[in-house]
Amino acid sequence: MPRYALRIEYFGAPFAGWQRQAGQPSVQGALEAALARLDPGPHNVAAAGRTDAGVHAWGQVAHCDMGKDWDPFRLSEALNFHLRPHPVAVTACARVADDWHARFSARERGYLYRILQRRAPLVLSEGRAWRVGFPLDVAEMAEGAAHLVGRHDFTTFRSSMCQADSPVRTLDVLEVRRAQGPEGTEIHVIARARSFLHNQVRSLVGSLERVGAGAWAPERMAEALAARDRAACGPVAPPEGLYLTHASYDPDPFGSAATGR
Amino acid sequence: MPRYALRIEYFGAPFAGWQRQAGQPSVQGALEAALARLDPGPHNVAAAGRTDAGVHAWGQVAHCDMGKDWDPFRLSEALNFHLRPHPVAVTACARVADDWHARFSARERGYLYRILQRRAPLVLSEGRAWRVGFPLDVAEMAEGAAHLVGRHDFTTFRSSMCQADSPVRTLDVLEVRRAQGPEGTEIHVIARARSFLHNQVRSLVGSLERVGAGAWAPERMAEALAARDRAACGPVAPPEGLYLTHASYDPDPFGSAATGR
Repeated sequence: MPRYALRIEYFGAPFAGWQRQAGQPSVQGALEAALARLDPGPHNVAAAGRTDAGVHAWGQVAHCDMGKDWDPFRLSEALNFHLRPHPVAVTACARVADDWHARFSARERGYLYRILQRRAPLVLSEGRAWRVGFPLDVAEMAEGAAHLVGRHDFTTFRSSMCQADSPVRTLDVLEVRRAQGPEGTEIHVIARARSFLHNQVRSLVGSLERVGAGAWAPERMAEALAARDRAACGPVAPPEGLYLTHASYDPDPFGSAATGR
Repeated sequence: MPRYALRIEYFGAPFAGWQRQAGQPSVQGALEAALARLDPGPHNVAAAGRTDAGVHAWGQVAHCDMGKDWDPFRLSEALNFHLRPHPVAVTACARVADDWHARFSARERGYLYRILQRRAPLVLSEGRAWRVGFPLDVAEMAEGAAHLVGRHDFTTFRSSMCQADSPVRTLDVLEVRRAQGPEGTEIHVIARARSFLHNQVRSLVGSLERVGAGAWAPERMAEALAARDRAACGPVAPPEGLYLTHASYDPDPFGSAATGR
């Protein structure tokens, strides 16, 4: 059965998360229902990142197996037609090898966390960023973040529900940047790693927000990490600010592929 | 009665436009209802730009008169409380002179029109940009736009419903820029003028899109302008891509003011 890689964008608010769950709307469920309109299946779509309820994606990657050959561009167009009115779109599609796997073949995942620092409620970015109503010190946040980069036991910064065998991960990038947008000052936290633990990015961002607010010294990030204790983590940042920006593969399956964006 | 200048952000989709209309939701109506919760009124709020149905604003400016003195920051907070759940927020508030007028005192208005060039339906930017499903030539669009800058009779590029006495306006800026965003290639059209005619920006953008698509040579923008004939205009671009970015005053009433962003 021919296998296809799909790059997927979604607005997370209406979904209980990526993963299919009985009686709850999920991105996986919406995609599998659209696939079923094209091919009887059964379909069991695997993805690079199993995002939580409310988390968004610009560059989720999944794969599917089809009963017949499809032109990749036509497959993406047909899926987008059947995905309506769900806020999910296929933005690229490519034929891949039968053993290519969206989850296991991924070399790196990237996330962006978007904080909007302002008093007024969010309007155009409602559900699309975390509003923090007081000033955050970006330099202090960046200093705190630097303590986390590298290979560490991230027990402090993973959900108690995390099912990964090991709490050890290598965080390649954890950057904090300030940007001026049309809705006010934005603070972007960029995280990149081969893989992440459950709630890892939101746990890191929630702790960094405490640093930015002045409640934590930057060194407290290192102390929290060393504690290897979930209780040492700051409050978990809300899901609406988090975006799965990309998953990377070598070679890039979408390098010369049909693209919808 | 003390007068206050308000900077206002809104998501235009649920509204029939800025202006109050019997039996229809409007931004002005939502704001006046919030004001009435604080002060019996009557309130008749004037704004710098009377945006159409579906058009957004980052920097609309309006003014209101209150029966008593308010601390500007507390006024903005109280208005934001009562504006819920409408997608409207006051992002700055300042006391101004009794003869200051949001519409008549404005020196310049600025608009941004956002085109997303991609095949896939919009998800995170649904209702927030115009999706064009084929490549646009930005250099050709910029060349076409250059013909429009300056003082001209814009009869071709205004709605037949436009009630302005004169079709002559001075367009200070009409720029076309390409930007790479997380959802694909964006094309931004930036327009600035002391004042605009009804549907002027959307008429200009709709015609420039024809240039970008290769259906019109850039010079056709100059020919359409010279025709002074509404029939010479291209299709009017949809409202969801248009943002009122700012209105400027001298001095800036929000220079040192309470700000919600």
